[in-house]
Amino acid sequence: MSSRDSQPDWLAEVNFSRTGLIPAIAQDADTDRVLMVACMSREALIESARTGRAVYWSRSRERLWTKGEESGHTQRIREVRLDCDGDVIILKVEQAGGIACHTGRESCFFRVLKDGRWQTTDPVIKDPAEIYGHE
Amino acid sequence: MSSRDSQPDWLAEVNFSRTGLIPAIAQDADTDRVLMVACMSREALIESARTGRAVYWSRSRERLWTKGEESGHTQRIREVRLDCDGDVIILKVEQAGGIACHTGRESCFFRVLKDGRWQTTDPVIKDPAEIYGHE
Repeated sequence: MSSRDSQPDWLAEVNFSRTGLIPAIAQDADTDRVLMVACMSREALIESARTGRAVYWSRSRERLWTKGEESGHTQRIREVRLDCDGDVIILKVEQAGGIACHTGRESCFFRVLKDGRWQTTDPVIKDPAEIYGHE
Repeated sequence: MSSRDSQPDWLAEVNFSRTGLIPAIAQDADTDRVLMVACMSREALIESARTGRAVYWSRSRERLWTKGEESGHTQRIREVRLDCDGDVIILKVEQAGGIACHTGRESCFFRVLKDGRWQTTDPVIKDPAEIYGHE
């Protein structure tokens, strides 16, 4: 930890945007499939590294968001990577429930461009209404 | 193509930022390793889809940038994916030379957080001075 602000030293090499955020790509630690992309604040990244659970910054709710806090689909972090410019993070994760997307699919990237349109390639594993307990 | 502006219809489902850009993740089509992340403008995405070669928007040079135009490390696109929110693109690519990073490494994500610091895990495959022909 640096003595000045009790932030970890490794954070100095992370280049957050002017709004204080950095994009984070969550990849399945076993298959390397890209599951989702979200934003992290400094605090989110520190918390993720400290706890080993993926914590993001929710821009819509303007607060820290532990992935899976509602759905139960938490992400256990196996590895954290940083790119050459220091402005994108990768988390290699073990995805609880095998579902990262709020649509109930494994990955948010379930559409592929084919024959001039976006075609859905992945099944819904669990109904979102069931995941989020809508009444 | 839509008749109004001769842009392809599938583009309507892509949500560009207010600055007209969208992040694009290039993944190795065979291994799914994330190679790099760059930005695309509408034109970059249309050109990528039309030509099958990855074209990005260079924010530093403020112009379209065909990946590999200097280095020769072009990317042939095998698949284009879009996420649930329509605001991140994935390109599955065949990476010429096996080098995507300007540092001469396979991937830009060559640093892993371990024991409180960023540790380099990947070798330089080719000296950047050689790649870019610096004199």
